[in-house]
Amino acid sequence: MNLQEYIQRRRRLVDKALERWVPGENEFPPQLHKAMRYSLFAGGKRLRPILTLAAAETVDGRAIDALPLACSLELIHTYSLIHDDLPCMDDDDLRRGKPTSHKVFGEALAILAGDALLTEAFHLMTRPDLMKNISPRRRLLAICEVARAAGPLGMIGGQTMDIASQGKKIEKHLLEYIHSHKTGSLIAACVRAGAIIGGASARECEFLTCYGKKLGLAFQVVDDLLDVQGEKDKLGKAVRKDESKGKVTYPSLYGIAESRRQARVLVEEAIGHLSPLLRGNRRADPLREIAKFILRRTN
Amino acid sequence: MNLQEYIQRRRRLVDKALERWVPGENEFPPQLHKAMRYSLFAGGKRLRPILTLAAAETVDGRAIDALPLACSLELIHTYSLIHDDLPCMDDDDLRRGKPTSHKVFGEALAILAGDALLTEAFHLMTRPDLMKNISPRRRLLAICEVARAAGPLGMIGGQTMDIASQGKKIEKHLLEYIHSHKTGSLIAACVRAGAIIGGASARECEFLTCYGKKLGLAFQVVDDLLDVQGEKDKLGKAVRKDESKGKVTYPSLYGIAESRRQARVLVEEAIGHLSPLLRGNRRADPLREIAKFILRRTN
Repeated sequence: MNLQEYIQRRRRLVDKALERWVPGENEFPPQLHKAMRYSLFAGGKRLRPILTLAAAETVDGRAIDALPLACSLELIHTYSLIHDDLPCMDDDDLRRGKPTSHKVFGEALAILAGDALLTEAFHLMTRPDLMKNISPRRRLLAICEVARAAGPLGMIGGQTMDIASQGKKIEKHLLEYIHSHKTGSLIAACVRAGAIIGGASARECEFLTCYGKKLGLAFQVVDDLLDVQGEKDKLGKAVRKDESKGKVTYPSLYGIAESRRQARVLVEEAIGHLSPLLRGNRRADPLREIAKFILRRTN
Repeated sequence: MNLQEYIQRRRRLVDKALERWVPGENEFPPQLHKAMRYSLFAGGKRLRPILTLAAAETVDGRAIDALPLACSLELIHTYSLIHDDLPCMDDDDLRRGKPTSHKVFGEALAILAGDALLTEAFHLMTRPDLMKNISPRRRLLAICEVARAAGPLGMIGGQTMDIASQGKKIEKHLLEYIHSHKTGSLIAACVRAGAIIGGASARECEFLTCYGKKLGLAFQVVDDLLDVQGEKDKLGKAVRKDESKGKVTYPSLYGIAESRRQARVLVEEAIGHLSPLLRGNRRADPLREIAKFILRRTN
């Protein structure tokens, strides 16, 4: 398969759906909706919703049925970036090559835009005019999955420890907790929720969960590496930030070569969990190719 | 009916359920769960969840079936207070007689605790081990109602305009927008979502929506009056804050006597919408008594 073409096609699908389903800038209050859309349409890769659609198809579901859920996951990802960038958190001025939300709209509106994106995600997942082909029971299960992964025992737990650990020497197991929760939880939930909407069996769900967890951790290890080795222009954000903030990362704890090796092993393990799902056809191709792509990404 | 006794009994029910269903301080990361619980168990009146339970019973549903949803609404209310109190928003040091979240835990953790309470609310509403007696379809409808009311076209929209209007002269219709969205939306959603879970017909839902909207606006008008006339010790927060922040309020726009009259009219109208639901029995008594209580509350 041609991954670049696949990703571009899917990205357009997600962008169009977000455009349609997220309240427009003509809604009142305009500045709130402008701030929400500023971050939502800042050129994100749409990796998370694409994973959701691919997971649904891997278990023979239809991508179109998982689209509202996929978009919700992008809303949640975007809210988490806005709040992470705040002065009292990571204090970042640049994101995807553009000034961060609080730099443009001020802190109050940035916080509110984040809150609004998070809340709107759950509105989108529950709207009665969408996902009519999916049984309400499956929809509830998928939403529960997303809420758990984005909550205090998932993403927010990881972010809390990330902030709390800045400038401190931390052990390997805490670093793995931070990475697998701050970034890994939501990525795994994208895959799991997509699988649930796609009609996955318990067994299929289990394999895809293992795939999602390995992939999520690999993604953040590569993120650490890009912070050390990447180029500001390609990344769209400042580099070498982790070191200047006193953040412990995979490269700072294991070195660059060993971190690269671990990322590669994680991706290989992720792909290994897909093999029981292949059944001789190619429906798991997108998830496999996306996993390989994670290793060679430059932004 | 004895309203004080009714409220106390219901408050204990809600407190016990929150204690059981919200992650404990032994969960990792402890500081996050401590911050969530600090605000959640700071002595709130539990008015919102009590309204949800009462609405469910008004349409012959069982309070116990609406309890997880009721608790979720208290989580959402609590998150909104934490974020509203932040230095870049209302910058309040005191809430319910205790230092506000960011005063105790710092800004970063206060923002994260708010995010976590909001997300956990949707987790609680979708957990497969709870609300098993309610059809998944009804549950989705109720959650959609809550998400819409708490989102950018509801509560967050109101808060955005409240912040944006500080120090400005605003018109009456904008003040009504702020009050009915910042406070009214979520109160109306408590009533509506409780009615949906209780099995309300479309007609019952419509009357309860009208009740909820009037009640929600009345609640915020009384809040304005308490800020002018209330006592700091009873309120548990500073008084005369609105004036010092340059906020336009009902008393500043209409005067105290006229604001009182408007609150009374709103409560009478709210109660009027209950009469078609009475059908000769007393099941709407709690909602009626709560509406009257709103007028005479002192905190």
